[in-house]
Amino acid sequence: MRFARFVHAGGVSFGVVEGDASGLTIAEIGSLPFEEVRFTGQRWALADVRLLAPIFSSKVIGVGRNYADHAAEFGNDVPKEPLIFIKPSTSVIGPNDAIRLPPQSQRVEEEGELAVVIGATGARRLDRAAAEKAIFGYTIGNDVTARDLQRSDPQWTRAKGFDSFCPIGPWIVTGLDVSDLEIRAEVGRDPSALETVQLGRTKDMVFDVPTLVSYVSHVMTLLPGDIILTGTPAGVSQITPGDTVSVTIQGIGELRNPVVSLD
Amino acid sequence: MRFARFVHAGGVSFGVVEGDASGLTIAEIGSLPFEEVRFTGQRWALADVRLLAPIFSSKVIGVGRNYADHAAEFGNDVPKEPLIFIKPSTSVIGPNDAIRLPPQSQRVEEEGELAVVIGATGARRLDRAAAEKAIFGYTIGNDVTARDLQRSDPQWTRAKGFDSFCPIGPWIVTGLDVSDLEIRAEVGRDPSALETVQLGRTKDMVFDVPTLVSYVSHVMTLLPGDIILTGTPAGVSQITPGDTVSVTIQGIGELRNPVVSLD
Repeated sequence: MRFARFVHAGGVSFGVVEGDASGLTIAEIGSLPFEEVRFTGQRWALADVRLLAPIFSSKVIGVGRNYADHAAEFGNDVPKEPLIFIKPSTSVIGPNDAIRLPPQSQRVEEEGELAVVIGATGARRLDRAAAEKAIFGYTIGNDVTARDLQRSDPQWTRAKGFDSFCPIGPWIVTGLDVSDLEIRAEVGRDPSALETVQLGRTKDMVFDVPTLVSYVSHVMTLLPGDIILTGTPAGVSQITPGDTVSVTIQGIGELRNPVVSLD
Repeated sequence: MRFARFVHAGGVSFGVVEGDASGLTIAEIGSLPFEEVRFTGQRWALADVRLLAPIFSSKVIGVGRNYADHAAEFGNDVPKEPLIFIKPSTSVIGPNDAIRLPPQSQRVEEEGELAVVIGATGARRLDRAAAEKAIFGYTIGNDVTARDLQRSDPQWTRAKGFDSFCPIGPWIVTGLDVSDLEIRAEVGRDPSALETVQLGRTKDMVFDVPTLVSYVSHVMTLLPGDIILTGTPAGVSQITPGDTVSVTIQGIGELRNPVVSLD
């Protein structure tokens, strides 16, 4: 199932996205995605609502250098253990929300990533099997990064923590086998003719999804809605005001965001 | 005023702590600390309730190397700009809650710190004057750190992010001039005879409180309850199971936590 959060004329709801490219609708649910699904009977054409980031997250954990080709493009070795960092909840935006480039950076880049959404409550010190069970589903994330500040600051918190630096969406897909999915990131001025800059497959992760969830859970308790961004393949490239950034993952969909200047 | 959050026979409440060492009481409020204070008329002796971390925080931002003597004790220069990092909300515990030492580290240390509590909603890109106005009050924080993992990991997220690695409390004090307060951290086996390991004054911060709040607000929007830990003076020392750790800040009070092994 595909779970989304959306704005309609009557407010904000969670819903289940149904149909295919020929006609998508969203059926409102009166429950959180993690609970037993209870449909309210209300339904909209997807084109008539505005999608939001599909979930609230108490924390967003990123993973650095988790594709060998991306580690190599900056001259880094692949880490021996997952390299984790935190993006603040204030960095999260939804589909079609603008990525706002701050004046402190002269070079911001996209990082298209598979995003794991936790469903279990109080998930801690999980082995790989328990880690798989703690996962609710998957969405698409863009770990937007001020590359110049990432190089100059001792910690990545500023470079990866600006408001709007964590687009998430368009929805959460459950029951998906993520062991070998294509990830593609595209950037360009003309939204109808974007250029592919990143193209990878999730099978090339250094640490796979269960390993990442297990690792993080041995440090910090995971809560429903928490997100783990699983790293980006090679090809990250500069984004500038006026660009559109798109990240597509096979089996999930496409996450698109325009880029603007904060000033 | 001193605002606390506490457990009593009827549930969890916010309250105002009144009186002095000869007899402290807590008067329940029916509002959040940031709102206009509305007393419910209920009151308890402080000894009859259990204090919790005084506030919920959507994010806890730490500042590294903000006292020259502490930077020097690890051979680091003082940074040219504030060095920020994030501790997850799952690391926060309250007064008297146990700091749980994880098996991944062989050397965990305390870091006693002045903690700024934000009161303003949507505080972003503040100058120093606006930053001062965005502050609700101050409490005490302990930026517990796995020193060995801080050295071995490229990012500090794991070393500083374990569950229980962010004791906060005992209450939030408003209307306090924090420009020159004594900070003391004590550690020991006998809770009645702790040894002073850190002793500093807030006037020795490299970047003062308004500068820190302004700096962070230019990266990420601050929300009510968000905490900025302002760095630790020299003298950080290893804590081991069976120890008690105490951090005292003049004009605020004392934050005490026992230390246990996670296993």
